[in-house]
Amino acid sequence: MARYDIAIIGTGPAGVSAAITAKIRNKTVLLLGKSTLTGKLVKAHRIDNYPGFPQVKGEELAAALKKHLEVMEIPITEDRITAVYAMGDFFGLQGASGEMYEARSVILATGVVQAKTFPGEAEFLGSGVSYCATCDAPLYKGKTAAVIADSPKEEAEAAFLSEVCEKVLYFPLYKEEPKLPANVEVIKEAPKAIEAAGLGKKSVVTEGGSYTVNGVFVLREAIAAGQLVPGLAMNGAHISADRQMKTNIAGLFAAGDITGRPYQYIKAAGEGNVAALSAVDYLK
Amino acid sequence: MARYDIAIIGTGPAGVSAAITAKIRNKTVLLLGKSTLTGKLVKAHRIDNYPGFPQVKGEELAAALKKHLEVMEIPITEDRITAVYAMGDFFGLQGASGEMYEARSVILATGVVQAKTFPGEAEFLGSGVSYCATCDAPLYKGKTAAVIADSPKEEAEAAFLSEVCEKVLYFPLYKEEPKLPANVEVIKEAPKAIEAAGLGKKSVVTEGGSYTVNGVFVLREAIAAGQLVPGLAMNGAHISADRQMKTNIAGLFAAGDITGRPYQYIKAAGEGNVAALSAVDYLK
Repeated sequence: MARYDIAIIGTGPAGVSAAITAKIRNKTVLLLGKSTLTGKLVKAHRIDNYPGFPQVKGEELAAALKKHLEVMEIPITEDRITAVYAMGDFFGLQGASGEMYEARSVILATGVVQAKTFPGEAEFLGSGVSYCATCDAPLYKGKTAAVIADSPKEEAEAAFLSEVCEKVLYFPLYKEEPKLPANVEVIKEAPKAIEAAGLGKKSVVTEGGSYTVNGVFVLREAIAAGQLVPGLAMNGAHISADRQMKTNIAGLFAAGDITGRPYQYIKAAGEGNVAALSAVDYLK
Repeated sequence: MARYDIAIIGTGPAGVSAAITAKIRNKTVLLLGKSTLTGKLVKAHRIDNYPGFPQVKGEELAAALKKHLEVMEIPITEDRITAVYAMGDFFGLQGASGEMYEARSVILATGVVQAKTFPGEAEFLGSGVSYCATCDAPLYKGKTAAVIADSPKEEAEAAFLSEVCEKVLYFPLYKEEPKLPANVEVIKEAPKAIEAAGLGKKSVVTEGGSYTVNGVFVLREAIAAGQLVPGLAMNGAHISADRQMKTNIAGLFAAGDITGRPYQYIKAAGEGNVAALSAVDYLK
């Protein structure tokens, strides 16, 4: 397997900036995220304070950033990372696609996660709660699994699970009507918590009831950084980083909204640059 | 006198970014520096890692930043600040033009000063050493003054001094032949130190000799931040700033190269944004 010098998770201004500077410094770069770049940027009506682009639409700035990546020949790998493991002199990155990536250093630029985690979610992560259907489906072969999903994009994951599991309970956190196979039961009740239910089982607790299953998949667009990387020092919802964008884990850096306010595109781009140069320094 | 909400010293990417964000937040902004923007940027051959501007020439990026200021209707005041005084609930900024400006908060974005100060320079600043001919010329009426100048642009200052002083000794730190009035003596020896010479006089010490005068004007394009603001906490040649770009002085913020490495345009622009929002917060 190719081991990259620097893996960058996130394709907002922070991730793009980090990738550009890392490439200039002749490092092999794995840039992971949406090839359309971050939704937050693309949807921005108008941005007035990214210096050099007066009164620019979000989609225009996103196009300029994408163009910059193209000129630099930096591809985007479309995968969602569900876990990052520090292995000593390298990191293992678990993709939702099932792919495992390796990199000598990692820059987290995933943006800030607005969604709160459910009570019990962090506690049972890895022992009955999973963020990755592709990775953990085999654990629930012939059994019952719950899927809590924040967008219709996760329906494909639930459909895949339904091929492996005997039954799937699907809790949509969105308004659109889910389109799912027959052995997937859609439950339109908002989950409140995940609880232990004896014999290694778990319950998804809603306002109206409690649904006991063998495992719970929580599928979100973005995963809170604290859950993504075991042992990562946090400051509330943000990663603790110093002015060189170093975290408490050697070789792991952070940039952009995930490191704290202000949530600003140009601040994120600046931090991406600093994180990349710190990673270059670390790789020496 | 108008008291501005935020005075920003420096027109590199950090100062420009700070001014744009401060203006968006409806603050009155005094942006001080060169209207051609920072020389370092303009002279840059090619910049590859300011995201959104692939393979841009320094002059092109400078033009884009200038255009942004114009669209936002932010003028540049061409004056060199020689001292910043914290007055409690506001700051006084001494301009080399003789103008005194007032602002409720200040952002230092002057870039990093490569030139070292002369031994004795900091010690005698305000008591025989001055950075501002317009401000302090009257102190040396009918007396002898030395001028140490790092560019031909300072010759106008020396000529002005020669109208007030009986004699001016001029130490050029550059190669061009100075064009100066008759009562200005050009001494082509590199100054090594400024020393006390009894009766309040000072000596400019060179390799070859020692020149005793009543006062010494040190005229440089940029002044080291530690000299600019009495009491400012430094970290070597850089201003100590936290991740919110706060310094040890309430209401005083810093951004860009002056806060430390890496010396990168996009890092500077990001910090300017953060400094502006911290100043907005401070003004509440």
